[in-house]
Parts: sequence; C-alpha cells; structure tokens
Amino acid sequence: MRRATISPVNDVIGETTNLLKRTPDVLRALLGGIPDSWTDTQDTPGGWRPHDVVGHLITGELTDWIVRTERILEHGTAVPFDRFERFAHAERDADATLDELVEHFAALRAENLARLAEMVSEEDLDRRGMHPALGEVTLRELLSTWAVHDLDHVAQIYAGMAGSHDAEVGPWKAYLGILLRRDDPSAVAG
Amino acid sequence: MRRATISPVNDVIGETTNLLKRTPDVLRALLGGIPDSWTDTQDTPGGWRPHDVVGHLITGELTDWIVRTERILEHGTAVPFDRFERFAHAERDADATLDELVEHFAALRAENLARLAEMVSEEDLDRRGMHPALGEVTLRELLSTWAVHDLDHVAQIYAGMAGSHDAEVGPWKAYLGILLRRDDPSAVAG
Repeated sequence: MRRATISPVNDVIGETTNLLKRTPDVLRALLGGIPDSWTDTQDTPGGWRPHDVVGHLITGELTDWIVRTERILEHGTAVPFDRFERFAHAERDADATLDELVEHFAALRAENLARLAEMVSEEDLDRRGMHPALGEVTLRELLSTWAVHDLDHVAQIYAGMAGSHDAEVGPWKAYLGILLRRDDPSAVAG
Repeated sequence: MRRATISPVNDVIGETTNLLKRTPDVLRALLGGIPDSWTDTQDTPGGWRPHDVVGHLITGELTDWIVRTERILEHGTAVPFDRFERFAHAERDADATLDELVEHFAALRAENLARLAEMVSEEDLDRRGMHPALGEVTLRELLSTWAVHDLDHVAQIYAGMAGSHDAEVGPWKAYLGILLRRDDPSAVAG
C-alpha cells in the first residue's frame, strides 16, 4: 500500500484517474439512445463523427495508454512506443452502433484503470519512455495526456453535434463560436 | 394531444428536448465532486472557468429561452426580446460551489422543459419573434439555438479543463488541438 503515504495535493494518479473514470458516464449521458440527427455530422469537413471519435478512444484503450505504461515500466527508454494508429477504428467499428461503441469503451476503460492502479505508484511517475516522434517523455506526462486526450476528443463530439444543427439556428449562428469555428478556426463569436 | 399526430422525422420539439434534458446529467458526470485542480482554469486567457459557464447556463434558464418562447407566443414580433445578460452570473453565483450550480441548473432545466412541453407544439414552430440585434427569428430557430448553446458552452468547459493540465502533458501538447487552440485559434494539431 505505498499510495497510502502520498499527500492528496500530489496525488497525480488519483487526480488523473478521477477524470478518466468519468468519460464513460459522460458519453452515456450525452449519446445513449440519442436520435441520429444529432450524431450524423463530422466536427469539421473531412473530420470525425461521434462514432469515429468513440472508436478512436477505444483504440487508445486497446493499444496506447496502458501498453505504453507497461513499456515504460519494463523497458524505460530502451524500446520506443509503437505508433498510435489513428485510423484503426474505421474498419474495425464499421458495423457497431454508437451505443455499442460507448459500452465497449466503458468496459475497456474500467479494465485499464484497474490495471493502472495495480501497476503504477506515485514514485514511478518520473520514469521515462521513448516516444517515436516526440523523444523522451515521462510516465507523468503520459498519464496527463491520457486524460487531456479524452477532453480533446469529447469536445470534438460536441463540435460534430453542434454542426448537425448549423442551419437550424438561423441568424443566431453569429453568436455560436462552436459553429463559426467549423468554418473558420479563428472566428470570434459576436 | 396535438403532438400525437407529428411524424418522428419532423419531431423538432422532441429532438431538441432530447438533447436539452441530457445536459444536467452530463454536467453531473463530468463535474460532480471533481478536484479543483481540473476546474480552476479559464478556457482562454480572460475567458470562463467551468463555474462561470454553468452560471451562464443558469442565466439562460432564468431569463432567456423560456422567457423568449413566451414572448413569441404572446407578442410575436411586436415586442422585441430583452437582451441576454451575458455576465449576470458573475455576482449572483460568486459564493456558490460548482456542485451547487450544477444542481441549480438541473432543477431549472427540468422546470423549463416541463413548461416547454405544455406551451409549444410543432405547429407553433414557424411563429416569429424579434431579436434586439438579429431581427426576426422563428421559434424553431430559438429552440435549436437553446440546444446548440448548451453544446457550445459545455465544450467551453472542456477547453478550461484541458487547459488546467497544459503544462502537465509535456511534449504531447503538439498533438492536442484543444490545448493548441487556447494559444492560437487556428492551430492544427500535429
């Protein structure tokens, strides 16, 4: 029970896990059984629909975050991480419903957080690994990135859902930055 | 029971309500009891923390969406809407916790959706009101804007939460658009 000695203000693992465990419930609340009219639109032209985003989050659970954590603990910087396959979901998830993907993601996330709790303690956080493009990174950075990557991609779901009703808001679009930025990333809402 | 005759594909009120009723549960799942370290940061410099955003959503429930719906039904375009007070939350909510704000919002939203169901049917959707800056708008546009406004501002909460860990992700920031855009709105993740 090494973690019992860690001060709450430095509880990086606890704080990160606290965020990571929320995402499945957020996705259920946001997407569970929602009409297709809200989820059939990409965040930007050529971008991702919510179905793609949840698939990408599944890929992260399958091949990235915990696999890289293990790599750091076993090999340090000696064996670089495998690359994150950013389009693995496209073929794999083509036949799954959005609700099925959310439940698949939820199961994988729960499993991975249990593995994280078993595998890592606060004193491991400065251990280093080798990213194939970014170079040396710490386990602490990997865990924070896991959480912020969730936030980045759930926000992408929001952009797609807003985009599905771009025409329906009429002149109010001028006040809705989430819509304006789909056309022009530097747009500022009125 | 006029709504019983409406086809599901044109059920604008049902589709909009479906989205609007989710937001309190999303906010509870995302923010309920979360450590302050995730919620103490603005979405952009000078922008809003999650506490401000939820306060702004409360203002909408108190003075905007349902009040404007009533204005359209009672006065059409003859009496313009009152302006949306975009900073009303700042003083009003200064002493409330984030959890208290989420529960206040949830109660107001439930009340307003009940009022909407009583007040409006599909055949009212083309009725018009007068926006003080945008001019004539339809009730249909107002209801869609209510929903997209939720999406816009919950996405803003995500940007603030991500920003709270901007430094912690280290070199991975180059891949996290939600962080890059806080510094440069037109940034594209690597």
